[in-house]
Amino acid sequence: MSDAETVVFDRPGNVCFGCSPTNDRGLQLQFVPVEAGVIESRYVVPGHFAGAPGIVHGGIQAALLDEIMGATISLTVGRKDFEREPIVTVDLSVHYLRPVKTGVPLTIRGRIVDRDKEFFFLEAEICGEDGRSCTKAEGRWKMVSHRRR
Amino acid sequence: MSDAETVVFDRPGNVCFGCSPTNDRGLQLQFVPVEAGVIESRYVVPGHFAGAPGIVHGGIQAALLDEIMGATISLTVGRKDFEREPIVTVDLSVHYLRPVKTGVPLTIRGRIVDRDKEFFFLEAEICGEDGRSCTKAEGRWKMVSHRRR
Repeated sequence: MSDAETVVFDRPGNVCFGCSPTNDRGLQLQFVPVEAGVIESRYVVPGHFAGAPGIVHGGIQAALLDEIMGATISLTVGRKDFEREPIVTVDLSVHYLRPVKTGVPLTIRGRIVDRDKEFFFLEAEICGEDGRSCTKAEGRWKMVSHRRR
Repeated sequence: MSDAETVVFDRPGNVCFGCSPTNDRGLQLQFVPVEAGVIESRYVVPGHFAGAPGIVHGGIQAALLDEIMGATISLTVGRKDFEREPIVTVDLSVHYLRPVKTGVPLTIRGRIVDRDKEFFFLEAEICGEDGRSCTKAEGRWKMVSHRRR
């Protein structure tokens, strides 16, 4: 996670549960750009984020998927754009296929699949140590200024 | 939160991020049965669960909604059944309507809307201090023994 390609969102004032490197109660995710519009994070979920013992809580899985989507947009449209115009999740759909284990290296992957004038459309997944997809998600995001009322 | 109606999931071995009273890095949600098939939780989200400063992270909102759904099934079908046959989320869809603030009392509400031989179908919402619904969700749950492969 310390190679030159790894991105840490260490901008001042970042308190985010998902990506702040200084929020020691958060996920502290770091991100690796893989290809255009695709971002990955390698992460070992600690035991305090379990639901049943040894299994990552479904809500924390949603948080991992939500966070990788935000990072994917941010790193694709550019950090400066992101900081000027925050983005928010509009809809998030998560499909739990098989258990995700705590304490083992996971790969969380986000991908922008479409974009129009108003929305970004994303897919994301959590893959286990063996590379199999355990949880999949689709998300719709927009700029804060376009937030649905 | 301390009235006689409040339910704490204090069974031995409960490590759950959402509801364990001894997981001090978790949400430590407590639950109040409101009517048949409807459960509420009153909760003030601490700042370390923010995304943007002062706004609850979208993933933590998903965790609150996922957790209230699990508790709603558990408290509706009965604690003993739940402990014998754990339940898991199959699908969770979250719709973010307006920002959810940290540091203010929220109401998280779950409701069973249908059930068949295989699945429980639920709705949930997070309401702000003014009672307005900020985030809504639908979920599909099943017994672990019926987990999709």
